[in-house]
Amino acid sequence: MYKAPVEEIAFTLKHVAGMADALEEGQLGDLSDDLVEAILEEAGRFASDEVAPLAEIGDRQGARLVDGKVEVPDGWADLYRHWAEGGWNSLVASTAYGGQGLPHMLNVAALEMWNSGSMAFALGPTLTMGAVEALTAHGSAELKEKYLHKMVSGEWTGTMNLTEPHAGSDLGVMKTRAERRDDGTYRIFGQKIFITWGEHEITRNIVHLVLARLPDAPAGTRGISLFLVPKFLVNDDGSLGARNDLHCHSLEHKLGIHGSPTCTMIYGDGRYGDEAGAIGYLIGEENKGLACMFTMMNNARLAVGMQGVAICEAATQKAVAFAKERTQGKAPGWSGSGQTGGMSPIIEHPDVARMLVTMKALTQGARAICYTCAHATDMAHHARADRAAHWQERAALLTPIAKSFATDAGVDVASLGIQVHGGMGFIEETGAARYLRDARIAPIYEGTNGIQAIDLVTRKLPLSNGDHVRGFITELREIVSSVRGLNRDDFGTTADRLEASLADLDEATEWLLVRIAEGNTAAALAGATPYQRLFGLALTGAYLAKGALADAETGGFERVALCRFAAENLIAETAALKDRVINGEASLTAARALLG
Amino acid sequence: MYKAPVEEIAFTLKHVAGMADALEEGQLGDLSDDLVEAILEEAGRFASDEVAPLAEIGDRQGARLVDGKVEVPDGWADLYRHWAEGGWNSLVASTAYGGQGLPHMLNVAALEMWNSGSMAFALGPTLTMGAVEALTAHGSAELKEKYLHKMVSGEWTGTMNLTEPHAGSDLGVMKTRAERRDDGTYRIFGQKIFITWGEHEITRNIVHLVLARLPDAPAGTRGISLFLVPKFLVNDDGSLGARNDLHCHSLEHKLGIHGSPTCTMIYGDGRYGDEAGAIGYLIGEENKGLACMFTMMNNARLAVGMQGVAICEAATQKAVAFAKERTQGKAPGWSGSGQTGGMSPIIEHPDVARMLVTMKALTQGARAICYTCAHATDMAHHARADRAAHWQERAALLTPIAKSFATDAGVDVASLGIQVHGGMGFIEETGAARYLRDARIAPIYEGTNGIQAIDLVTRKLPLSNGDHVRGFITELREIVSSVRGLNRDDFGTTADRLEASLADLDEATEWLLVRIAEGNTAAALAGATPYQRLFGLALTGAYLAKGALADAETGGFERVALCRFAAENLIAETAALKDRVINGEASLTAARALLG
Repeated sequence: MYKAPVEEIAFTLKHVAGMADALEEGQLGDLSDDLVEAILEEAGRFASDEVAPLAEIGDRQGARLVDGKVEVPDGWADLYRHWAEGGWNSLVASTAYGGQGLPHMLNVAALEMWNSGSMAFALGPTLTMGAVEALTAHGSAELKEKYLHKMVSGEWTGTMNLTEPHAGSDLGVMKTRAERRDDGTYRIFGQKIFITWGEHEITRNIVHLVLARLPDAPAGTRGISLFLVPKFLVNDDGSLGARNDLHCHSLEHKLGIHGSPTCTMIYGDGRYGDEAGAIGYLIGEENKGLACMFTMMNNARLAVGMQGVAICEAATQKAVAFAKERTQGKAPGWSGSGQTGGMSPIIEHPDVARMLVTMKALTQGARAICYTCAHATDMAHHARADRAAHWQERAALLTPIAKSFATDAGVDVASLGIQVHGGMGFIEETGAARYLRDARIAPIYEGTNGIQAIDLVTRKLPLSNGDHVRGFITELREIVSSVRGLNRDDFGTTADRLEASLADLDEATEWLLVRIAEGNTAAALAGATPYQRLFGLALTGAYLAKGALADAETGGFERVALCRFAAENLIAETAALKDRVINGEASLTAARALLG
Repeated sequence: MYKAPVEEIAFTLKHVAGMADALEEGQLGDLSDDLVEAILEEAGRFASDEVAPLAEIGDRQGARLVDGKVEVPDGWADLYRHWAEGGWNSLVASTAYGGQGLPHMLNVAALEMWNSGSMAFALGPTLTMGAVEALTAHGSAELKEKYLHKMVSGEWTGTMNLTEPHAGSDLGVMKTRAERRDDGTYRIFGQKIFITWGEHEITRNIVHLVLARLPDAPAGTRGISLFLVPKFLVNDDGSLGARNDLHCHSLEHKLGIHGSPTCTMIYGDGRYGDEAGAIGYLIGEENKGLACMFTMMNNARLAVGMQGVAICEAATQKAVAFAKERTQGKAPGWSGSGQTGGMSPIIEHPDVARMLVTMKALTQGARAICYTCAHATDMAHHARADRAAHWQERAALLTPIAKSFATDAGVDVASLGIQVHGGMGFIEETGAARYLRDARIAPIYEGTNGIQAIDLVTRKLPLSNGDHVRGFITELREIVSSVRGLNRDDFGTTADRLEASLADLDEATEWLLVRIAEGNTAAALAGATPYQRLFGLALTGAYLAKGALADAETGGFERVALCRFAAENLIAETAALKDRVINGEASLTAARALLG
């Protein structure tokens, strides 16, 4: 059973992601180290003791549509209420609406733990937090006053309605329409698919944020508006009024995250109310809906990255525990013991150890990248004004890497976890397979990892004319210098390896910047995914080393050993990835013809 | 829907795996090119038109244990009968028992197609073929006469009973016991798990091959005997007699291959018959059971490799078809068309094209390796006596690479297939997710891929004191010379890339041979899995080039393009893998400590 790695999380936040310096410099308000520890401890306890035990039943029962009502798995309604009562929904929300105004770093660490406990469960709150963020940034004072308090407390949940059957990654072609009414409200008509936690009975109301198009809207993404469409209308005194004209038509039958209801939502077909059309309230300005979504996109993407980290951690814990218990064969050098009949615990076999250490290194690398991204977001809000732009760019640059690297790692680590379990890994009751089934959606939603790569190469590398990413690589090289300066044997060839991977990153970056500057997008995009992976691997090497350096000061050896393993066994791939970025396009273009 | 790639299969068999030369030199008996084509065509038709349409219902319904009987999915009983009536069960079986005595190459190609149609369905026949092979090689004349005709025709199915709860990879500790009887038969007592197609009602009898231990047997793997234990006893006239004392206790609830009943089998608990104990007949000699299993192990492992190839092919076909239909966004250089509202088919996006071409290259590489392995097996049987040992060694060397590379590719390609589908890939009805769920078992059973790597490094590399593998690498280098000699622009840098990958293979091989010779098994095993992957990637590059060379002679460009893509985008990883083999052990050893 999952046990939240609170100490590792706290260490990574403080000594790798930058929280310790930020605290010391007072850049996170009056947040104290003690409060950080207390919050992480309590979140860890709740995730381990309350959430994780209900993950399996959630997977087995799944969400069900019964007589038009969405039923969640047994125990989940109470779990949600306890969770919201604990204040976990409101960590980062504005104090103006009952939130705690804490740094994103803390919320991201908590998200990791909820998702390790049960990714399907954590999805509901994740979507509510996104809706709160969008409404806070763009809603009118009246809308915010009416809705935000209850969304921040978790008394009501929120959703995001973007996707339509023909419009997934490309929102410009969506068809859901909004009609203006004389009273300033709108009527919404259309169908939305893949709506996470779109319907349930856990809370008395659900606040849908819906993208739709006005009749006179410009074509494409410049003609999309954002609306707040509650399941039940809200009276001026805050009490619930009539049922709005929207409902859940069906639930998807999915590979994983079974406990999370993935709804097809119908707006405005006349099922409820005197007149067809779901009543909606404009958020922000007409035709500026996509811009409203963009403000929350970085955090939403990072939240999905945390799902990857979470699965990595949980799958690794499970595999390590199994590999210590299960005995088979005799590993080289194993002296045997009476208890096991001469067989080794499989963790003693080098191949199994290699899988487990790889899982640990990928977990820790993904975690460090994601937390560092959250730190940049916090610094953009809290740092001195003259540094805010710098940190905004850093968060923008790190977001696609965090989302893609962590979610790819989630799939890879979960798959390795099954392999460590052998035949038992394929049996559903073991639980290792669920991690792979759950993990597999994360590289897809909130912008596929391919779309993250396009974003990274075409929008993020050119920030400050490329000087931002250049400065970042320079910072990373300082880690190499520190490792080299330490001159400790147990780092092995870490410094040389890191230096080589950063040289690969540097070269690939400059090559791409030239292509983008030339307008040769096709050449840049051909290598975008290998580049994104290269960046993630180089960061993994660098951040594991950063942790090892902090650990080494106090004599610790574990992080040194893990960093050395990553350096000497994982990151050499950056050379092949760089090669693919720079030399891969011609053969890709030629081979595309054979796809017919 | 899957359509068997008969032309590609025939091309690979003939021009990459070596069938054309073998046919020309008359080394495959009186087999003609026309007969090969006819068999492949008909197998392809059956797999595409009869098997594939029943895959989805098999996955959805699964095998069920109802009132002690195992029910297979709707339509599968008829499907099996049609399949057996078509003679597909008997392609390689001995003509002495009604088999067709055809080359393994043809059976392997057919296995690919059955597994692409439905891996869960194809598993039953695969196990029967294994049982036929073991019985043919080691059974007494009487046993063979009594059982083989009906097993070869498919009138009865067969199973292999190896695994017990505490004895998976390590058979030496199995507990199932056999007692000698005065009449020369044995009574079998014990529990076996993970028994594929262990019980069903499709055929009137099931012939279980069961490993068990005699009371006075030596400890470990030298004390295991093999028994034939039929579900129903067989009278001397071939009619069925009493029910034997064995039954299916339960079915596993698995991640994939739902239609394939995975049984826990109970032998000898007294449920059937006057006296407890399932009646068994010794196959081969007492305590030589494991040797009997080893004779069929190479073919069984290759058959699992074919499952990997099969999933690769089916998943790629599905993803390519989807990527041509689905439109989203605007790819660089896309001129638009009225039909799509200006959106590109997603196949036009470089990232999607990269995934699809990677899937194609891995499919074709895995196929070529597996077919080449089957060719070696055929040559060992059919070639001149003075060459048989050479071909036996080649088959032995290729088997772990074929099994591991193809099954890893199955998982990777199926996962990429989901990614290409975006959100739809996560929805079970789409069918892309099933490929990943089915594929995930193949790297585990029939010897985990980690065990394949141990076999490759410790048993296969030392064949002929290392000269066999050295000779093989020399042969592969001739492909490089041919590519270089052709001097064609459209091969790009293929020759240089292949040369580099073979140099990596050479260096890693020599390094491992030294460690094995020194008795430094721990060092060798630390890099066994990276080495196995390195070998598979280098072979993929070489064999795609071999196909491209054959194609280039007749002006074809498709295989040239695919080979160049593999050379310039996939195989550069061999450098990092070699590095891991040679330099990875120290950091792996250091990091193992942190697993606790």
